[in-house]
Amino acid sequence: MTESLTPPGVTLGIVGGGQLGRMLAEAAAPLGVEVVVLDPTPDCPASPVARDQIVAAFDDDGAIAELADRVDALTFEIELTAPEALERAGEEAGVPVHPKPTTLETIEDKLVQKRALAEAGIPVPAFRNVDDADDLRAAIEELGAPIMLKARTGGYDGRGNFPVESADEAETAMAEIGGPAMAERLVDFERELSVIGCTGAGETDAFPAGENVHRDEILRETIAPARADDDVLAEAHDVAADVLELLEGRGVYGIELFEHAEPRETDGARITVNEIAPRPHNSGHWTIEGAVTSQFEQHVRAVLGLPLGTTAVRCPTVMANLLGDTDHSRPIAAETDSHDGETPADAASMEGVEELLATEGAHLHWYGKRDVRPLRKLGHVTLTADGTGIDDRDALLERARDLRDGVRFE
Amino acid sequence: MTESLTPPGVTLGIVGGGQLGRMLAEAAAPLGVEVVVLDPTPDCPASPVARDQIVAAFDDDGAIAELADRVDALTFEIELTAPEALERAGEEAGVPVHPKPTTLETIEDKLVQKRALAEAGIPVPAFRNVDDADDLRAAIEELGAPIMLKARTGGYDGRGNFPVESADEAETAMAEIGGPAMAERLVDFERELSVIGCTGAGETDAFPAGENVHRDEILRETIAPARADDDVLAEAHDVAADVLELLEGRGVYGIELFEHAEPRETDGARITVNEIAPRPHNSGHWTIEGAVTSQFEQHVRAVLGLPLGTTAVRCPTVMANLLGDTDHSRPIAAETDSHDGETPADAASMEGVEELLATEGAHLHWYGKRDVRPLRKLGHVTLTADGTGIDDRDALLERARDLRDGVRFE
Repeated sequence: MTESLTPPGVTLGIVGGGQLGRMLAEAAAPLGVEVVVLDPTPDCPASPVARDQIVAAFDDDGAIAELADRVDALTFEIELTAPEALERAGEEAGVPVHPKPTTLETIEDKLVQKRALAEAGIPVPAFRNVDDADDLRAAIEELGAPIMLKARTGGYDGRGNFPVESADEAETAMAEIGGPAMAERLVDFERELSVIGCTGAGETDAFPAGENVHRDEILRETIAPARADDDVLAEAHDVAADVLELLEGRGVYGIELFEHAEPRETDGARITVNEIAPRPHNSGHWTIEGAVTSQFEQHVRAVLGLPLGTTAVRCPTVMANLLGDTDHSRPIAAETDSHDGETPADAASMEGVEELLATEGAHLHWYGKRDVRPLRKLGHVTLTADGTGIDDRDALLERARDLRDGVRFE
Repeated sequence: MTESLTPPGVTLGIVGGGQLGRMLAEAAAPLGVEVVVLDPTPDCPASPVARDQIVAAFDDDGAIAELADRVDALTFEIELTAPEALERAGEEAGVPVHPKPTTLETIEDKLVQKRALAEAGIPVPAFRNVDDADDLRAAIEELGAPIMLKARTGGYDGRGNFPVESADEAETAMAEIGGPAMAERLVDFERELSVIGCTGAGETDAFPAGENVHRDEILRETIAPARADDDVLAEAHDVAADVLELLEGRGVYGIELFEHAEPRETDGARITVNEIAPRPHNSGHWTIEGAVTSQFEQHVRAVLGLPLGTTAVRCPTVMANLLGDTDHSRPIAAETDSHDGETPADAASMEGVEELLATEGAHLHWYGKRDVRPLRKLGHVTLTADGTGIDDRDALLERARDLRDGVRFE
């Protein structure tokens, strides 16, 4: 059953060539694994470090089939692809696809995902199907306000999520979401945790839980390991193991959890599952420097059926996202021709990078995106106890925030 | 004086696209720095992870000028390039070249290099210029046999080096070397050490010395930090600092040293300089996992004039080279068309990689070369105390050798 593909001479096809595809390609190269990505944006972030890019929509059947023909295994770094096209392309080209497209189908619809979790006895916040404003009012009645209304498909980084305070807002909220949705009880939580789980060929494992700080529903920082009690971390690990059993196919999965201080609101569960991503996850970027194996190398190993690497932590680590903070779109890495001396008038420059680079133990990851947009993920900075000499995670977080805040787009 | 080039949107041109170019490109990507390489081998090791490759000879003036036109800074990862062409191309395109081509000129001729070191008062084994067999016999008379005869230019990985036991071998040795040479006294040494030094914009630093094991004049393993006494390590660091002062231009330099148990043979010096490489060096590969900053990231930072990263060690680490062990050339990563089912009859496969990947704390680096040749550097494995839990460097070395020996080309 293991379709192990041993390097060298192995090529991995990835649907999606954003920062996740870029970091997958960066991790694949040392293993002797080449990468071809499929992405609609010409010269996408992964492109400069990949063997090649097929420029096409994520769900373009023909392009997915072309990708399958050129590679030894297929995976994806974005949920906006077509599971059935992936499955068919893999079968026709005779190459494995991981995670299984059926898993993608389950996960890409948030209602289906939550139902699958609930049916497996995995604790989740109470939720209801919401097709229209009447459903939403009924859900508020049953679950109690406030609730979070979520588009069933297509949302990410807070897009497709809409908090609802009362039944009066039902019509507005449905118009905002614009399609089939689900309502979820907004339960108080102590901490957001995240476990990067991994399923290999006949083995599963997970990195120790990290702790996520969101603002405006966008991940800002991850602290690893999480500053939670050992028994909470053990429970998070157990819940993540149960989740992995549900998911078909090899790969790395980002499992976002809530830690509840008041378990009576969640039928006694101290840990509930918020959301699953069938791919490497922003909350696992800390593993590049903070763990012995990175989540990206782990995903490549898993998809190819190679042995998983150890998930051991190297040292306390904080990851902080570098988000676009300008109020309008403008290019930051425009193709300038140095011979005519012209620079596009609205090209922004990044300031504060030198201080970041001068900080011992700070690691820059830049994604090579060409436009700054507000809250767009442009890169991240990782700060490790190794190098800084700061073992205390509160202090490490504070320093990481300072460094992150020092980077500005002028 | 600092020509600092702040990412993002910076492109680095590298003359040479072998494994050093590949690992430079892997390290540049997270910094938001793109790479274009110049290399005569189509699809050279760096090519799949670089933005682009110019296919041309290392010393092709026109191609070097073309490279300079396309990038923001120039460097090289091989000494077989043309210093004057590099200098001219940098001037004409208005881009900095580091290290300085004058440094390359000094280093690429082993006699000129040794003279520069000796003139600066840096301890080196006794040496003599050798233009012909008469010179060689005179050198043996003066220095005493055995001596090492070295081609002044073009040698690497033991090529261009020829040990001479007696004056009777003078004619044979000169024919073997085939050009201007130098003779060097073969002094007993306790250990071969190597310091990766780095010169940034107004700062210099060095990684702690590693310990090198050579066989047949090819590096087999590096143990880091070296298993030498603290005072010896301090002396190695001081000598390396003196060497860095001699070298013009920013970048990482591999400084190979001997540790002498009998300093009376070397005028009292416990450390002498064997050779300098004006680029990242095989003996610094351990820094990728073993140090907070890798020598490759450090070189990119240095060449661009960015702040240097810390040279702090993360944990005891052993690097072992994966060398071609077949007795004839054959392809290992041939371009096979998966649709006709044909595999070239003499394509070799690599065995033993799975055990290596299954070992916690073992890291594979494969260079993507297409032919196995005896003793060719095809990749390396790094074994860290982090992950293995083996802190003892003798035990770490033994385990790394076992893993390396388990990888075979069938």
